[in-house]
Amino acid sequence: MAAAEEGQWVLMATGRSPTNIAVIKYWGKRDEALILPVNDSISVTLDPDHLSATTTVAVSPSFPSDRMWLNGKEISLSGGRFQSCLREIRKRAQDVEDEKKGIRIKKEDWGKLHVHIASYNNFPTAAGLASSAAGLACFVFTLGKLMNVKEDHGELSSIARQGSGSACRSIYGGFVKWCMGKNNDGSDSIAVQLADEAHWNDLVIIIAVVSSKQKETSSTSGMRDSVETSPLLQYRAQTVVPERVLKMEEAIKSRNFESFARLTCADSNQFHAVCLDTSPPIFYMNDTSHRIISLVEKWNQSEGTPRVAYTFDAGPNAVLIAPNRKNATILLQKLLYYFPPQDNDLSSYMVGDKSILSDAGLKSIEDVEALPAPAETKMPSQKFKGDVSYFICSRLGAGPKVDTDESLALIDSVTGLPKGV
Amino acid sequence: MAAAEEGQWVLMATGRSPTNIAVIKYWGKRDEALILPVNDSISVTLDPDHLSATTTVAVSPSFPSDRMWLNGKEISLSGGRFQSCLREIRKRAQDVEDEKKGIRIKKEDWGKLHVHIASYNNFPTAAGLASSAAGLACFVFTLGKLMNVKEDHGELSSIARQGSGSACRSIYGGFVKWCMGKNNDGSDSIAVQLADEAHWNDLVIIIAVVSSKQKETSSTSGMRDSVETSPLLQYRAQTVVPERVLKMEEAIKSRNFESFARLTCADSNQFHAVCLDTSPPIFYMNDTSHRIISLVEKWNQSEGTPRVAYTFDAGPNAVLIAPNRKNATILLQKLLYYFPPQDNDLSSYMVGDKSILSDAGLKSIEDVEALPAPAETKMPSQKFKGDVSYFICSRLGAGPKVDTDESLALIDSVTGLPKGV
Repeated sequence: MAAAEEGQWVLMATGRSPTNIAVIKYWGKRDEALILPVNDSISVTLDPDHLSATTTVAVSPSFPSDRMWLNGKEISLSGGRFQSCLREIRKRAQDVEDEKKGIRIKKEDWGKLHVHIASYNNFPTAAGLASSAAGLACFVFTLGKLMNVKEDHGELSSIARQGSGSACRSIYGGFVKWCMGKNNDGSDSIAVQLADEAHWNDLVIIIAVVSSKQKETSSTSGMRDSVETSPLLQYRAQTVVPERVLKMEEAIKSRNFESFARLTCADSNQFHAVCLDTSPPIFYMNDTSHRIISLVEKWNQSEGTPRVAYTFDAGPNAVLIAPNRKNATILLQKLLYYFPPQDNDLSSYMVGDKSILSDAGLKSIEDVEALPAPAETKMPSQKFKGDVSYFICSRLGAGPKVDTDESLALIDSVTGLPKGV
Repeated sequence: MAAAEEGQWVLMATGRSPTNIAVIKYWGKRDEALILPVNDSISVTLDPDHLSATTTVAVSPSFPSDRMWLNGKEISLSGGRFQSCLREIRKRAQDVEDEKKGIRIKKEDWGKLHVHIASYNNFPTAAGLASSAAGLACFVFTLGKLMNVKEDHGELSSIARQGSGSACRSIYGGFVKWCMGKNNDGSDSIAVQLADEAHWNDLVIIIAVVSSKQKETSSTSGMRDSVETSPLLQYRAQTVVPERVLKMEEAIKSRNFESFARLTCADSNQFHAVCLDTSPPIFYMNDTSHRIISLVEKWNQSEGTPRVAYTFDAGPNAVLIAPNRKNATILLQKLLYYFPPQDNDLSSYMVGDKSILSDAGLKSIEDVEALPAPAETKMPSQKFKGDVSYFICSRLGAGPKVDTDESLALIDSVTGLPKGV
């Protein structure tokens, strides 16, 4: 099987995949097993420096079974979704040769070898920031690299889709469309890149991670309930979304922020409307989410044209998209006026691109306290300290890539186990 | 003009009209001026002892203009809606004779006489409890009595509709359907009684008046925005509601609480879904509303069949409908566990039918504090003291009626002005 005589070698690959946030939402499957959606969706890929999953996949004849660790903790691989991805990639495995290590694996041998997978998110898993999208995309991408899979990104996206629907969109950077497809076997339900991250690189993304004590409905069970009980879901999928997808593609192509923002906000709200139309109703947004929307809407209305877009996934966090740095800094000032940090510690209140703080003239908590009340919001000038856990400032980013620096691997090349475990 | 020589007489009528709460919602007009809706709606009329408007209408040759007072404060009558109702009732005025007072008004003279109107709600106006429905229905009903209008309830409902859409449903007791009608002049957009309050008199209604600091979107401007911007509204109006109305009529006819409850909850949620699908989105429910829904949904799910229905109008207050006293007392125990009174004063925390408290074994604040956490709700056992302002316990009630006891009149029969002003 392997040229290295004693069979104690470990071969590894490490990759990093971005997370993505949908601007035209995916909500509802027409096939639960294959994860085929009821409508197309469009997303932006976020900068992996700020929000990404890193995964190391190792193979060794000494591994008696497939195992996986997420953020250092072993998790079960028995779920159908991991198994689907593993099976589909193994099927496409090719001969692999590592001359330096003297390892050779023939494609027919992959079926007999087990893998160890270690994955790590550089952002909180539970924060509802599409960690499963980044994680599954990374799993598929990195496994494919290890097994020398030759298939193109479209086919990889189709495999990632079977792990977690929205993961298929994390196979590309920039602007990505997940085409729902028509085939029953899902072969045409793949992601395509609409434009890369350089196409519209002024966009600034600010995420408000909203504190929540409520346990949220998982998106898997939530969308199943919506498909079964919401009278509005099919109308949305069949009539509203197709038109919005065309308009969104046009808005992205022409970098028309007004159209992009209107579509993004309307589609986020409609997704949450369908959740509310579900029985029992699903509430992902809370009062803090509503306040952030009001703040943005009032600003946009007072300017007569959208200054910022918002979108919310299956949780209360706001993802705010500004067309440029200037609008982003004004937005940040407005946000921090209403949502100052709980513990007065400004530096840990902003993660990702922290330089936005100084751009907004906010160098200390005193600067935050001195912010004027936004003129256009006729809200009572009440503040909501502690209702936002922290902010992330990011931008558009690239798709998955291989980390060739072996020191970045999450698995020890001798033991075949996660480092530090 | 009048037999009483000196022209200093005052002739009065006093009436009382109930409020109503829709179980199939009215949201969206097809004609703004005539107030013609985009779909039928169905409501229950609440007991006027707990929630009603009382109105005295006075006429005197000494009044130089039409004037109106609401809860003791003079308000403008110049709004188109009051004017529509005044005009329509005046048009139908008949000869009136009060032999005791020696007053005779001929129908052709009504156009030259002015009226004073005093109205009073026995519940907070700003609490979002359909005060305008009760008020406008009472205005039309009482004005009609004073002017000896012979038209039937259907025609009165059509006039009240032009004052405030949902007011047309307050012209009857029990279960009421507002038929949207087809005619452009609105002549067939009237309310009809489906069943009187005796038909299903086990129903118990508990209203949680939810504290809210946010200014709410008025229903008039909210539904206009929804008609103009929500892609889901027309689908709801044309496809979803007609079927629900038929099922709801059947559920009411057969007193099928399971079907009644499922339809009521689903339709409330869909109305709020359409609000969320509006641009900018409208949020009437807040986190407290969501928690009350979760509490009810978890209870209903754990029992396998609905124990209680909920519905929310254009505000955060929950209207909860129980099929009988037993379920209502269990509901109250669950509600008070999570929402104890802010100031520990139990007696002012329940208005309307206060006897529900002792039925639920709650005689003191200690009894509330000793309530066990509801078993089925896996919420953290956090409590939300102060998030509900107070509760109202009520039941179904009758339509408008005349108060013949002149001591109950809100206007002084000598001065023609509101008493105590």
